[in-house]
This record gives sequence, C-alpha cells and structure tokens, in this order.
Amino acid sequence: MKKRVAVLQGDGIGKEVTDASIAVLEAIGRRFQHEFEWKYGLLGGVAIDKAGKPLPEETIAICEESDAILLGAVGGPAWDNNPSHLRPERGLLQIRKHFELSVNLRPVQAFKSLLAVSPLKEDVAAGVDMMIVRELTGGLYFGEPSHHDNDKAVDTLLYSREEIERVVTHAFELAKIRRNKVTSVDKANVLESSKLWRKIVEEIAEKYPDVEYEHMLVDAAAMKLITYPSSFDVIVTENMFGDILSDEASVITGSLGMLPSASLRVDGFGLYEPIHGSAPDIAGKNIANPIGTILSSAMMLRSSFGMLEEANAIEEAVKNVLDAGYCTSEFKEIGRNILSTTEMTEKIISEI
Amino acid sequence: MKKRVAVLQGDGIGKEVTDASIAVLEAIGRRFQHEFEWKYGLLGGVAIDKAGKPLPEETIAICEESDAILLGAVGGPAWDNNPSHLRPERGLLQIRKHFELSVNLRPVQAFKSLLAVSPLKEDVAAGVDMMIVRELTGGLYFGEPSHHDNDKAVDTLLYSREEIERVVTHAFELAKIRRNKVTSVDKANVLESSKLWRKIVEEIAEKYPDVEYEHMLVDAAAMKLITYPSSFDVIVTENMFGDILSDEASVITGSLGMLPSASLRVDGFGLYEPIHGSAPDIAGKNIANPIGTILSSAMMLRSSFGMLEEANAIEEAVKNVLDAGYCTSEFKEIGRNILSTTEMTEKIISEI
Ligand SMILES: CC(C)[C@H](C(=O)O)[C@@H](O)C(=O)O
Ligand SMILES: CC(C)[C@H](C(=O)O)[C@@H](O)C(=O)O
Repeated sequence: MKKRVAVLQGDGIGKEVTDASIAVLEAIGRRFQHEFEWKYGLLGGVAIDKAGKPLPEETIAICEESDAILLGAVGGPAWDNNPSHLRPERGLLQIRKHFELSVNLRPVQAFKSLLAVSPLKEDVAAGVDMMIVRELTGGLYFGEPSHHDNDKAVDTLLYSREEIERVVTHAFELAKIRRNKVTSVDKANVLESSKLWRKIVEEIAEKYPDVEYEHMLVDAAAMKLITYPSSFDVIVTENMFGDILSDEASVITGSLGMLPSASLRVDGFGLYEPIHGSAPDIAGKNIANPIGTILSSAMMLRSSFGMLEEANAIEEAVKNVLDAGYCTSEFKEIGRNILSTTEMTEKIISEI
Repeated sequence: MKKRVAVLQGDGIGKEVTDASIAVLEAIGRRFQHEFEWKYGLLGGVAIDKAGKPLPEETIAICEESDAILLGAVGGPAWDNNPSHLRPERGLLQIRKHFELSVNLRPVQAFKSLLAVSPLKEDVAAGVDMMIVRELTGGLYFGEPSHHDNDKAVDTLLYSREEIERVVTHAFELAKIRRNKVTSVDKANVLESSKLWRKIVEEIAEKYPDVEYEHMLVDAAAMKLITYPSSFDVIVTENMFGDILSDEASVITGSLGMLPSASLRVDGFGLYEPIHGSAPDIAGKNIANPIGTILSSAMMLRSSFGMLEEANAIEEAVKNVLDAGYCTSEFKEIGRNILSTTEMTEKIISEI
C-alpha cells in the first residue's frame, strides 16, 4: 500500500521523536512492502513564529491531502506569555476540531521491565493494560458561552446525543477485541450532561450483550486508577474527565515518554502523537525517549491503515527491546542499558 | 467554653463513627473543661425515609442553632435508583449551599506506620502532608442553565470574583501557618473561568510576599500528585477539580477511613465529616475506622471553636495510637493489632 502521512514535528523534541517514528515506519515499509510519503507542516510554537498562527492554512491543506497525521509535541516557555490565540496548544485544539477528531485513545500499560520506576508498588502496577477512550471535541472545551471579564467567568459543558454515541460506541467496539469490559466514567450524581451520558451508555450497552460494563463516578475512578489499576480494560469518558484521568493513569508506566495516543475521526482518519510534551530542556540532545511516538505510529497503522500485523510488529519490537534491558536516559536510576534517541530507534528497527 | 454541635449521623456507618467522635470530644471536654451539647438531625437516606427529603427543614433549624455540624456519611444502594431530588447526596449539596460552606479543606497525610498499605511506593508516599482547599459552592455543580433532554445536555461553570477570592485567600492564609507554599490548580490553557482564577490568584499572592506560589494545570497536577506528592503543601482549586484531585490524593494514605474534612463558611461556622462513604456493607458491625471522623472533630475544634491545643491533643493521640501499631480491620493484611471501632475510640481517648 501507499500512504501519505502529514508530519507535524511541532516544538522541542518533536523533530527527534517524529524522525524516530519515520525511520521505524520506513523499516515496516521495507519488510511489508508499503510506501510512505511524508509531507511536513508547521504546528504550534514554530508555526506561530514562522506563519503567525498556531495552525496555518497550509498545514491544514497538507493534512487534508494525507491519510493520517503524525505529530511530535507542541509548546514551550517561549510562547507561555502569548495571548490565547497565539498559544501553541491552541493549534492542537483547532486541529482536533477542524478534522473532527472526536475519539481520543490513550492506552496505558505497565511494562514489566519498568515496574521499578513506577511510583506505584510493583504488585499494584503489574499487569496494567487499559485503554482510555476520551471524547475530544465536545464538552467544556468548546461550549459557548465561554468568556470572562474582571468580575466573573463562564464556561459551558455541552453535549449532544450524537457526540456521546460516537465515542461510547467506539469504546464498546474496542472492548470486544480486548477484554470485554467497559467502565464509563461520569459525575451523574451532580451533572446533567452526565445523566444523558449514562443513559446513552445504557442504550448502547444493550447492543453489546457480551461486553460487561459499569458506571463509575469520576472521583471514585480517580482513586481506583491508583488503588486497583489492573481492574480496568476500556474506560470511556467525556473530554475534561478524560484529560485528567488519562494523565493520572499515565504515571503508572513510570515515564510519560513511553505512551502513545490516537485521535480519530469516525472514518478512520487520525492524528497520532505521544502523550508527553515538547520537553524544550532536552531538545536537540538526542536523549529523548522515542517510544511514545513510535508506538503512536503503530496505532496509526492499526487504526487508520488497517495494517494489523505491521502494528503488532512494532509493538513486539518495542517490547523485546525493553525486555532486553534497554531504555533511554530518564531511566538511568534503574541502571539498565541507556541508549540515545537514535540508538533506541535503531535497536527497535533491528527487531522488525 | 460551651458549644452546641449538630450531629447528622446520616446512613450506614455514620452512627458508629459520629458516636466515636462524640466520645472523643467528651474526653476533650473533661480534660480542657469544655461542655458540648449534641443535637441530632436527619440527613441523607434516613431523612428521605423518615421526612421525605434529604435535607428536612428541621435539620436546617437544628444546624442553625448550633456552632458547628458533625456529619457521618450519607448514601447507600437503597436510594441509588431514586430520582435526583430524592438522592441522599442531594442533601449534602443543599446543606453546603444553604450554609454557604464555600471552603472545603481536605488534608492528606501519609502516616508512617501505614506506608505499607499505600498503593504508592513507600519512598514516594513518605512525608506527604498536604492540604487541599476546594471551592465548594460554585462552578459546574451549581451554575445555570443545567438540564438535559433526550438529545442534548448542558451544565454551566460559573465563577464570580468574590467566590474565587474567598477560597484563594483562605488557601494563602493556611499556607502562612504551614510551609508557605500554594499550588493553584486550573486549566487556564483552555477554560475562561480558569483565566479569571489565575488572575485573581496572582493579585492575592501579591499580598503574601512570603508565600511561594505556582500555577499548575489540572492534568499535570493529577500526575504530580502521584509521582511527587510530598512536593505539595497547600493546593487550591475550583469545585470539580477539587472533587477529583482530593479523592485521587486520598489514596496515598492507604485507607479512606483515615481522612477528615472541613467545609467552612467565612465566619468560621463549619461542617465536619470524614471523606469516606457510608459503607453499608460493614454498618453495625463495630469494625468501621472512626479515625477520619475523629480527626474531623479535631478540625472542628481548630477551625470553628479556635481550640488549637485541644485539636492538637486529638491529632497527637491518633498518631500515638497508630505508631503503637494499632489499627482497624481494613489493615489486616499488614498484621498489626486490629481493634474494633469502639476499642479504637477508647484507645485514642486513653491518650488524651
Ligand atoms: C494542551 C491541552 C489543551 C490538551 C488538552 O487538555 O486536551 C492536553 O492536555 C492533552 O491532553 O492533549
Ligand atoms: C456526593 C458528591 C455530590 C460529593 C461531591 O462531588 O462534592 C462528594 O463526592 C464529595 O466530594 O463530597
């Protein structure tokens, strides 16, 4: 197959980690006879500096001509005091909305060889393998009215049935090919939007008799993610809760550098990025962990291109390299074999 | 001094844990020559059953005649399928709003003798001693419009300058008598209400030049609470974020049964309750942990009655009992001396 991928390196370590991912995808292309075409666009701080806005039209055009988007990371202290519309993360919100990337997938797993660096006790973190499904284009992030003056402020949490159905259906579909369990997180004892959410979950659950599901209040979920994380399979929740819970859960792995994400449109088009930030302090030093971005490209193969075997090949390669005791510099305390960004990338490629 | 306390036992283990607290306060009264008068009122499920609503007028009247409110816990499966206005937790929201209990204090500490039961590694949890200050009567919980039909739903996050100033000022005042550090948590990169919040924090911080402060995004805070919890002193945040983060942080201690809370009006009147729920499964068995409620009554002495020495006496007593290896049944796995609710209460009283 031939696939066009828009590459948005973004800021900080974004270039290094997307380069790593591209190298791995090229290796996949060689082994499985696929051809990838890379088109580079600006997003975030670099786009503000060079094109005057965080998501320039040219970037949108490049993405529209592509089959998927690979993103590094955006942001950095250079733009921290900019007005809202000139903030790098504004570009992220805009690209999600423009391409209707309404389903955000954030897998969290505990890699056996890294249990020593998890803040959780090893027996608590062991075996964690959950998929957080976050609604990404609705809720408090986008509802109107939304403004503030010197004396008061308002934000609006809006959801339509359609928005909720879309993401909840996706979660149940995923559960079917995972461990058949969905935990829907809401605050139905207080919020009206959560009451509609809960109702729709119950309707959709009826269509999936083999999938076990439960409702959990967001505060209870915030506890259980830490006390009993291995009890979760698929978690589905609205935008803001998903933001908080997915970052919370990500610490289980021991390093943000390990974790990928996918942001999907209903037709399978998607944006793939690691969950870590742009880490300007280590940019250009060839020490960033490329695994989060490499695993994001595996998600791209699976979710946007239907290349399941290829996706598995990447995930297996990563697992083998970790099991063999290799890691990047953020793990130096556990005294494994520390590799640079490019060495880690080569090591993973050698397993493909 | 003579103080009148409204006692709202609520549901489940509520009676047992408030009884324990009352016994401890009586002991304090004997030692320090205070007199407490207890007036009992209904709240929650029991109020729905006996008076047709979760917060009956008679309970309001009892609380209005009192100097503070001691609450056990509300809720249980018996009322889970009731319509919203007949849910036990509705009574909680109503009592907070009626008495303008706008500042919710949730201290979280890691007790040395219980580090073994924390889900966090012992060196991560050790030394944790933070105070979460949650705004309790504004934000998404109370803003209008708030409704849903079959196709859409809306909730409204509203804040006035006054509401924000009140809680943020309280947080800075607390920091002054603690470790001089405030972490204000918001989502200012997305929410308008958070932008106003951040602005007001900066204004108030100017009046406290000796208090170090920082802004933290809620998703970053959800991570750091687990990766580096001992870095926090006072955390201040809006209602919904506070709900999620305080429950998340509470797991550090290893048992919800240990943790107290205070909900304060600006004039010092307050409601005091443990953060745990009504635990109907263990109600009436004399095995519930009374410490969360006993420590809540210490907060009452300190915050509503200005009895600092007395509050310290309770906290010291609890610490001594824990350090001596005593605990309640939820800790059986760590093989200490397990006491019943009443035995634990007696043991604490013997240290006063
Ligand atoms: C940068 C920010 C707007 C964004 C969000 O809150 O969605 C980020 O935290 C994320 O989770 O991707
Ligand atoms: C019962 C519920 C309404 C309440 C809240 O969310 O405030 C509870 O979770 C709490 O934190 O006291």
